[in-house]
Amino acid sequence: MCFWLGCHFTDSRVRVSGASQTLTHPEESDPARKNKTRQDMSSSLCFPSPTREDLAHFVGLPLGALPTPCAIVQESTVRRNCRRLVEVARDLGVGFRPHVKTHKTTEITRLQLEGLQSRNVIVSTVREAEALEPLVREGVVAGILYGLPLPPSAVPALRALRRRNPGVDVAVLLDHPAQIPAVEEGEAPWSVFVKVDNGYHRAGLPPDSSELRNLLDVVAAKESEGALKLVGFYSHAGHSYGSTTQARSLQLLLEELHAVLVAARVLGDNERELVLSVGATPTALAAASSEWREHELLKHGKWSLELHAGVYTLLDLQQLATRPAELGLADVALTIMAEVVSVYPERDEVLVALGSTALGREPPPKDSIYPGWGTVTAWKEGQQWDGCAKSGWIVSRISQEHAVLARHGEQQAVELKVGAKVRVWPQHACIAGNGHGWYFVTDGEKVTDVWVRWRGW
Amino acid sequence: MCFWLGCHFTDSRVRVSGASQTLTHPEESDPARKNKTRQDMSSSLCFPSPTREDLAHFVGLPLGALPTPCAIVQESTVRRNCRRLVEVARDLGVGFRPHVKTHKTTEITRLQLEGLQSRNVIVSTVREAEALEPLVREGVVAGILYGLPLPPSAVPALRALRRRNPGVDVAVLLDHPAQIPAVEEGEAPWSVFVKVDNGYHRAGLPPDSSELRNLLDVVAAKESEGALKLVGFYSHAGHSYGSTTQARSLQLLLEELHAVLVAARVLGDNERELVLSVGATPTALAAASSEWREHELLKHGKWSLELHAGVYTLLDLQQLATRPAELGLADVALTIMAEVVSVYPERDEVLVALGSTALGREPPPKDSIYPGWGTVTAWKEGQQWDGCAKSGWIVSRISQEHAVLARHGEQQAVELKVGAKVRVWPQHACIAGNGHGWYFVTDGEKVTDVWVRWRGW
Repeated sequence: MCFWLGCHFTDSRVRVSGASQTLTHPEESDPARKNKTRQDMSSSLCFPSPTREDLAHFVGLPLGALPTPCAIVQESTVRRNCRRLVEVARDLGVGFRPHVKTHKTTEITRLQLEGLQSRNVIVSTVREAEALEPLVREGVVAGILYGLPLPPSAVPALRALRRRNPGVDVAVLLDHPAQIPAVEEGEAPWSVFVKVDNGYHRAGLPPDSSELRNLLDVVAAKESEGALKLVGFYSHAGHSYGSTTQARSLQLLLEELHAVLVAARVLGDNERELVLSVGATPTALAAASSEWREHELLKHGKWSLELHAGVYTLLDLQQLATRPAELGLADVALTIMAEVVSVYPERDEVLVALGSTALGREPPPKDSIYPGWGTVTAWKEGQQWDGCAKSGWIVSRISQEHAVLARHGEQQAVELKVGAKVRVWPQHACIAGNGHGWYFVTDGEKVTDVWVRWRGW
Repeated sequence: MCFWLGCHFTDSRVRVSGASQTLTHPEESDPARKNKTRQDMSSSLCFPSPTREDLAHFVGLPLGALPTPCAIVQESTVRRNCRRLVEVARDLGVGFRPHVKTHKTTEITRLQLEGLQSRNVIVSTVREAEALEPLVREGVVAGILYGLPLPPSAVPALRALRRRNPGVDVAVLLDHPAQIPAVEEGEAPWSVFVKVDNGYHRAGLPPDSSELRNLLDVVAAKESEGALKLVGFYSHAGHSYGSTTQARSLQLLLEELHAVLVAARVLGDNERELVLSVGATPTALAAASSEWREHELLKHGKWSLELHAGVYTLLDLQQLATRPAELGLADVALTIMAEVVSVYPERDEVLVALGSTALGREPPPKDSIYPGWGTVTAWKEGQQWDGCAKSGWIVSRISQEHAVLARHGEQQAVELKVGAKVRVWPQHACIAGNGHGWYFVTDGEKVTDVWVRWRGW
């Protein structure tokens, strides 16, 4: 029984008309499943993954012996990346709420929370929230924010998650009054952030709009009935992924701060405690700049600033392009490994068995110093990992399961032969990881661990 | 034990130096796995999928009650699409070799072969070849062509597949002499196609190039030693996906035919039996045109023409754009369903919980009549499926797990509310399907079956 469908059993408002005769709970028909909770079944049946034990035989292998395509994470780099934002927040004395959507793993979630006082994270799917439950039971995660306006059909699953874990603070984002009915029937009031559109125009309401004022009126009414609890305002500067300078990222951070401040002031209650949550990897990293340390939000008594970000954990070419003076290839923790299947001297190109199913397909930012769908590293089988040397090849064209490499740059390109393994820095870590069931973790030359990604929605 | 790793046990040429101490065959340590073959383990451990039985409780549900995002296949449409190319080939009296990479399912492979004399299919990954083994054992599939130059590391898995299924004809593509050593050690000679580059410039050698002549010399030498068997020449007109008229697709078909003919003549033996395999959905469909029926290849006594294609099974916006006079929205068998999570009247946009993880990210062809990352159908929950009516909305921007809909076209857009389910025709069926573990199959209003997709490489 998928947990998805389990929703239909627990929430009578979800219509399953005409189908009830086909629903048989698998625990009734399969004794071996009786000991499993529905929660287990969500992952084990609909979106099964290998266990760490299933993959344990890969541990110890040299990277060149791995099956390809595969995703490799440099452990020391991801640790350093995670520490970077914890330190930015600590230096500023502000909060930090990491997002788990980039990696979708238990292990990197732990690294993101290391050194943080708060134990709050952000998810972008119900599946991510459910996958965090072991960390909730361990006490590692205390709060889970569903980081985009909530699909009404996701509420029964999140309500069930709250029931299974009474201590957990499941917070939701609202930006339309029609989203409220879905969360007002809980056993205890849900924590609510109101989503502010800071110019990215994906989700949220403009801070000075009549729509925002109207939503806040409805939220206030529901709050007075005890149906929900307004925690604060939330914005996400997704358009900062297209920034190409630190100055531009800082400007977008200031625009984010302005947006949540304007929104908070609509409440007309300066003394109310509120969390104002802003960020995206480029703007969250820009918070380390000294230029804005006199910002009024840092000096407000009741309102607390919180940064949030997700891609910072693994980083990628797109993120490097937003902060070229500060981040370099050695900061990218994720590479995708592939095999060379042919070489075409007459057109100076190389074919690799690596398509958009394993690398993703995200174009480079305009005028990026990293063109193509990815940059090929200079790593060679059996050689030590340098972490920042390029091969002189980029991924210039991409199909479903294959890609063409072309030369790029001044340097002499590394010679590539049929059967050689190459490693590619992807443009976008969140998208590149998505095709993979797990990450091979390494300290440089051999697999030291295997981190299984959460699948599904 | 993953089959991937199994390769390292069966082929001593694959280096696993320094790691042997970590390799424990799971059959030794886990008695429950003793009855499983390595082949079973490839899918059940490394790339597990739900079984049809695990998902059987979805059968009978109305489409509006399905968890989202999800992939829906209209069964009557996919059947009609499969029949279309069988009939094109039959009318011409030529062969047809369907590609399974678009759908990666057992069920659609069966439909592709229905009505065909030959039982040969094409795959683009080792995993697809392995997943076809039940159909090989049933006698439905007799030949499997690995449709791109073969990664050397894939050979041990394909060799093992041949051993498990002695009757199956596993054929490979070659376009570089360095690929030959990997296949010349088999128990019986491998069937070989030489890959010709017809102008797409992904894989293959130009038909009039010295590289092709050189490769054919090496192939001939190996053939005389009994190491392999040259079956024919193969080209793929992938650039025809960018065609916007039937005339252009026909022109590309003629260029493909010319390319394989020139390549075949390099052999200098007109009396040798050869298969000349050409296609891609646009050019294979163009083969129905009457304009080229006097082509010399159709009249050659020894050389037999074979068409091949894959996307034709499901079709998508990109394919419709290549043949606008002949194909319409009612021919697209795949839609992706998603939930509306917010509505923004002030900017006339709508947010849906459907990102590139579930829709893929493939831009529309230039000047396509179907802009955006997908077109939203006019289907409404509880209403009958029309199959070709648009809603007036397109997917205009896309993120990891979410997308923004914007209005497009002259018509009045369907009103969308928070919680409404929408269905999206994707730009590229192969990429859109990739994020999904299975297709919900329907005859219009309820789920009639569940077809599980093969995962991994």
